[in-house]
Amino acid sequence: MSGNLIMTNVRPMGADATSITITKGRITGYGEAVRDDADTLDGDGAILIPGLVEAHTHLDKTLLGMPWYHNDVGPRLIDKIENERAQKRLLGIDPARQSERQALLSSSLGSTHIRSHVDVDTDLGLAGIEGVLETREKLRDIVDIEIVAFPQSGMLVRPGTVALMDQAMKLGAQVVGGLDPSAIDRDPKGHLDVVFELAERYGRPVDIHLHETGELGAFSMELIVERTKALGMQGHVTVSHAFCLGMPDQDYVAALIDALAEARVHILTTAPAFKSVPPVKRLMDAGVVVGAGSDGVRDTWGPYGNADMLERAVFVGLRNNFRRDDEVAMALETCTHGGARMMECEGYGLEPGCSADLVLLDGETLAEAVVARRPRKAVIKSGRIVAQDGKSIMTAP
Amino acid sequence: MSGNLIMTNVRPMGADATSITITKGRITGYGEAVRDDADTLDGDGAILIPGLVEAHTHLDKTLLGMPWYHNDVGPRLIDKIENERAQKRLLGIDPARQSERQALLSSSLGSTHIRSHVDVDTDLGLAGIEGVLETREKLRDIVDIEIVAFPQSGMLVRPGTVALMDQAMKLGAQVVGGLDPSAIDRDPKGHLDVVFELAERYGRPVDIHLHETGELGAFSMELIVERTKALGMQGHVTVSHAFCLGMPDQDYVAALIDALAEARVHILTTAPAFKSVPPVKRLMDAGVVVGAGSDGVRDTWGPYGNADMLERAVFVGLRNNFRRDDEVAMALETCTHGGARMMECEGYGLEPGCSADLVLLDGETLAEAVVARRPRKAVIKSGRIVAQDGKSIMTAP
Repeated sequence: MSGNLIMTNVRPMGADATSITITKGRITGYGEAVRDDADTLDGDGAILIPGLVEAHTHLDKTLLGMPWYHNDVGPRLIDKIENERAQKRLLGIDPARQSERQALLSSSLGSTHIRSHVDVDTDLGLAGIEGVLETREKLRDIVDIEIVAFPQSGMLVRPGTVALMDQAMKLGAQVVGGLDPSAIDRDPKGHLDVVFELAERYGRPVDIHLHETGELGAFSMELIVERTKALGMQGHVTVSHAFCLGMPDQDYVAALIDALAEARVHILTTAPAFKSVPPVKRLMDAGVVVGAGSDGVRDTWGPYGNADMLERAVFVGLRNNFRRDDEVAMALETCTHGGARMMECEGYGLEPGCSADLVLLDGETLAEAVVARRPRKAVIKSGRIVAQDGKSIMTAP
Repeated sequence: MSGNLIMTNVRPMGADATSITITKGRITGYGEAVRDDADTLDGDGAILIPGLVEAHTHLDKTLLGMPWYHNDVGPRLIDKIENERAQKRLLGIDPARQSERQALLSSSLGSTHIRSHVDVDTDLGLAGIEGVLETREKLRDIVDIEIVAFPQSGMLVRPGTVALMDQAMKLGAQVVGGLDPSAIDRDPKGHLDVVFELAERYGRPVDIHLHETGELGAFSMELIVERTKALGMQGHVTVSHAFCLGMPDQDYVAALIDALAEARVHILTTAPAFKSVPPVKRLMDAGVVVGAGSDGVRDTWGPYGNADMLERAVFVGLRNNFRRDDEVAMALETCTHGGARMMECEGYGLEPGCSADLVLLDGETLAEAVVARRPRKAVIKSGRIVAQDGKSIMTAP
């Protein structure tokens, strides 16, 4: 396909209706004349937004399309981690097939970019990375997939994992992951030594799962900020979850937010209802980039995720008590521009020159379209229609 | 209609498929032979659950079907209360029309019972009560609506409100409402004197909005428990929201839960993500009845509510970190049996003899059907099909 497309009667971010011209996969203008060599789509007054960005999920281990997994797992984090490692073999969770299922679901729901953490451990080695790489290649015209090498079961506590992380980066993982330097790996300095050494060696960004709450998480966050600055990695480091930013000590939180802003360390939230969470508005007001993600989608950890980033915007809104229309727009921003900046997407947005990664939403206003979460009218990737009325152009395996 | 119905190939709570026979609006048996004088519905393997119970909403002030309300209201509770009173006139929110819209939406989503708090105040008097009474009568064969006379703007702080509350009960409100005895009405003893005096006089239950957090809310809750016992109203009093039960002092929370259980005071939660909330599992384990509700559905308070009680079950699950299948079932129970016990519904459930208020859900297992939240296959009220495939048999105004 040419990547030339004209969409008429669309309302950018809910503003007045206009047409948009896309040439060779990029936005070339608004309100322009019709061209002969372009496909045309009547937007019918739909709201135009940039592609949704699923900035934190786990494509390799969703159970989508598999028989329902009856969850009776124990309450601790380690229960879930150990159960999952066992279930991967017992259930036969195929990372290639499963990641394709979820990525196509995501695309049909408007996501044009996905950052996926992919498990690297001594049980299954690089099978997850290899599977998601296969999907990344297969769906390259449908959705951008960025792979984080993720030591889900711990790194230093499981000898052999560091070498696998190194191999994962060689194979094509684009981001170095990490996980609870103290609570899981029992050695915060040692854990961050490895993570940042890999990042330096491969010239890649970092994204660390930080479930640690309160002062312990804050300490880890300080260490991450210090290294980011020491290594000149400002703008290339994300802390995912960051529950510690929801701790009661508001003076400490304020100091952490200042430090994050200064080091340009990004925050990723899934806006969980049951945990302390990063305060999205305060972070954004301080200039910190905040992205959002689904986390696990129907996996052995829990049954809820559905890969819908409009629903995630609603969750960000509900969790942060966003009620005003401008606040709903802020929640949506975590699911669009926030994630895009985190993923360092080149040419993301609605401006001429940007890549034509777009979604058309039926709705009266932007806020109404977000809260209603109707099937997406159309999803455009690089100027090409990849989903319409909630259905992907590709069939999932 | 006869209220005679046979549904074949249905799975009660996800168990093995059977048929259900309904006679004159009541369940008369399972797996029985076909009768001549009954309509038949092929359940096609759908999961059968009792009707969903929307146990806390505000039918009189939803903005459903009206132009989108651009929300730029201030952050305090009083900002929202005062803005709403003004907007009721400015926007022309018609309680009869609006309550009918929401009640039909609820019914199409599987709710067979609704408890609605309805505003009573000195600005609009009993207009809300009169409007919802009209809808209650009009939809009597579709959904049971129970009306709480609710002093949203305060009672003692707005002279004239007590007399209106009395008139609301005379007009046909079935429950006496209350609101933040200290934080809003500034006189906890005085507020509860009036609420419980009305309840005694009319022989009606009580349902009090208690947003007060921490020790203040706990004090109000103690007062409510004391009066419940003193007046022999065990089983007839609900505390809605009850944010104080999410306070940090766990010993105090444990003592409150014991007191609630002993006085058979019920708890209603909307499972808000941004507030401290009652711990659902601990309450249910202690024998306290826990119901759930949508609270406001797309009103001047906020844009999010959608009247879907399966989604509310998901919110209860997410807020309480319920991940296991048995926990998802517990979340659903707040949206079925919990609300039904709170509303003192006679003959509620799936047992023979119960009123045939039922929902058919497409789904692999009960937990899967809850988290997927698909359009409801069928909704049955008193043995009559009132919605199919997500559509009500009645058209909303």
